Amino acid sequence: MSADNQQERLDANWIVGFVDGEGCFHVGINQMPKMQVGFQVLPEFRVVQHQRDEKVLFQIKHYFGFGTVTKNHGDRKEFRVRGLENLNKIVQFFRQNPLRTSKQKNFEIFAEIIFLMNNDEHLKKEGIEKIRKLAATMNRQSRKHLESSETSRQTQIVKIKSDLLSDEKMQ
Amino acid sequence: MSADNQQERLDANWIVGFVDGEGCFHVGINQMPKMQVGFQVLPEFRVVQHQRDEKVLFQIKHYFGFGTVTKNHGDRKEFRVRGLENLNKIVQFFRQNPLRTSKQKNFEIFAEIIFLMNNDEHLKKEGIEKIRKLAATMNRQSRKHLESSETSRQTQIVKIKSDLLSDEKMQ
Repeated sequence: MSADNQQERLDANWIVGFVDGEGCFHVGINQMPKMQVGFQVLPEFRVVQHQRDEKVLFQIKHYFGFGTVTKNHGDRKEFRVRGLENLNKIVQFFRQNPLRTSKQKNFEIFAEIIFLMNNDEHLKKEGIEKIRKLAATMNRQSRKHLESSETSRQTQIVKIKSDLLSDEKMQ
Repeated sequence: MSADNQQERLDANWIVGFVDGEGCFHVGINQMPKMQVGFQVLPEFRVVQHQRDEKVLFQIKHYFGFGTVTKNHGDRKEFRVRGLENLNKIVQFFRQNPLRTSKQKNFEIFAEIIFLMNNDEHLKKEGIEKIRKLAATMNRQSRKHLESSETSRQTQIVKIKSDLLSDEKMQ
């Protein structure tokens, strides 16, 4: 990755369009028995790409001036932002440059959770409950997506079972 | 879809970012024994979205002033442009507003095919051969993708076979 390539500066509107397509706002809530409230809240912003387009992830990183480019899964890479300080800047960016797709709804809930965390609500029992409920609304879409993948896996199992049966008949 | 919603005018850079994520340049070549050259060349530009974001496809259509929004597959919709006259305008748009990802390479080949079609090369035997070779280069990436899906299906078959075996052992 040459410095020149990184310095082809992106346009804010291009980033919004690209994130409307490929971006993801996610809030993980992990059980942490050692913590007083029992849970840890982990918000993050991600943009995932095939590794052949890693360059564009570095350009996004260069545009924001923070975040990391790291392995996502298989041959995919991700630009990822964690940490309240930088996520506040991400929220500010998408307030100034709103998303065009239904991802905007997820962003609004994400921004609300970041606001609660700025006020240390994630360190209080009632705050955690509030954040869990918000996060559940936010991730409903992706959960539906997971469910439909699961359904299609089930369908595929039936299909493969029948393929195996006909293979056996052939033998 | 209200007229107001359609009239929220998009920005060219947003469209480029969104197409870098979700767009597709495709050239279909179909056997047509009735035609003198034996083949029909069908170039098209597509942007696919879940039906929940149909609105944004209509906004893209409104921006360009041509194309159609139609069903893609399952719960997905697509904005689609066919026909040489409008595809020339699409090529002009992406010449003025280049893509940032490796999709730009596909676009360059697509533009070359459109150029050849402007010169009626798709109506000559040698022209068709040239277009077929170009289209094969263009779609190589998607074919690789298909191959890797096929590999992962094979992996899944092995996984499911072993799941079925252990299910049987449990019974």
